[in-house]
Amino acid sequence: MLALPRSLDRLIQVLATLPGIGRKSATRIALKLVGSGESECRELASAILEAKERIVSCSECGGLTEDDPCPICSDAGRDRSVICVVERSSDILALERTGRYRGVYFVLGGLLSPLDGIGPENLGLDCLIDRARRDGVREIILALNPTAEGEATAVFIGRALADIGRRVTRLASGLPVGGDLDLADDLTLGTALEERRDFE
Amino acid sequence: MLALPRSLDRLIQVLATLPGIGRKSATRIALKLVGSGESECRELASAILEAKERIVSCSECGGLTEDDPCPICSDAGRDRSVICVVERSSDILALERTGRYRGVYFVLGGLLSPLDGIGPENLGLDCLIDRARRDGVREIILALNPTAEGEATAVFIGRALADIGRRVTRLASGLPVGGDLDLADDLTLGTALEERRDFE
Repeated sequence: MLALPRSLDRLIQVLATLPGIGRKSATRIALKLVGSGESECRELASAILEAKERIVSCSECGGLTEDDPCPICSDAGRDRSVICVVERSSDILALERTGRYRGVYFVLGGLLSPLDGIGPENLGLDCLIDRARRDGVREIILALNPTAEGEATAVFIGRALADIGRRVTRLASGLPVGGDLDLADDLTLGTALEERRDFE
Repeated sequence: MLALPRSLDRLIQVLATLPGIGRKSATRIALKLVGSGESECRELASAILEAKERIVSCSECGGLTEDDPCPICSDAGRDRSVICVVERSSDILALERTGRYRGVYFVLGGLLSPLDGIGPENLGLDCLIDRARRDGVREIILALNPTAEGEATAVFIGRALADIGRRVTRLASGLPVGGDLDLADDLTLGTALEERRDFE
């Protein structure tokens, strides 16, 4: 079998470490890049380096931003009395896309996972509790993934916040909007049944 | 809705131009890159630039290589009497992976496509005919995709090579090995039937 040119092979290997990119996609992308103009390659390389250089974590919420504090934390129009706790900064993007949230955020940067050695001290829980204690904070929304780690982390945070007298809420679990009852898994359908609401 | 930081947005846009990467995958990759160490980003950027700088087309076959002529064309053990014509250099990789071919290659760099303005003069057909005329060449294998453009190009090349007295062959069409007769499309199954072989 033909050995790939070394620099092409290296590019494929590096591309294949990216999320969602396997060896086959990496090869396709590498061949496209090598076959395209030099300016396209320079453009991509500089976009990577520029983004890495400019993007920092917001010192308030932990979200990704070029300016610290981030546009959300520095927006006087956002409701500072509600803090939405998310796992990753990409979750902020997802929630912002809904256009239904006007509060501020807090990025944990991970979930509790004792098997992976991630304990409470690795997540910014102290910072979160400090922020939750501030004057005017009314509600902490736990917007963590409905997985085992997400649940465990939510329970842990809920207990840690229990004694400071703020309302602690979580995202609703149930059928996806537009979803099919017949295709829902048992756990989701069971939760949707248990957490049923009055018909308005 | 939150506007993305400008440099992150640019990175996502550039990544989304890569084959097989949509806006969602591009966002996931960009967030991974921005969240990873600076060395990972430098590694990727330098791998892109290095590959683009080092990889050239082999002056013999048109395949991608760091050394010209490429390892296949300069391999004394390869059978120079058989030339396999492919559309793209990635097709060479696919054929080499089979481990069943010991001849040499010729990369067309495209297929005839009058609607896209790609005529015979845009493909290296003169070079191919020159190579086919060389002493000792016995067979030209047309390994083009079994699509309308691939067929048209194969027919065109077949005619162009008809008068120089070399055997011109093409890859077999039929059921994929391990495939399911029931799932094959009508055209494939019809071709497999027409081109049936004696049971040995």
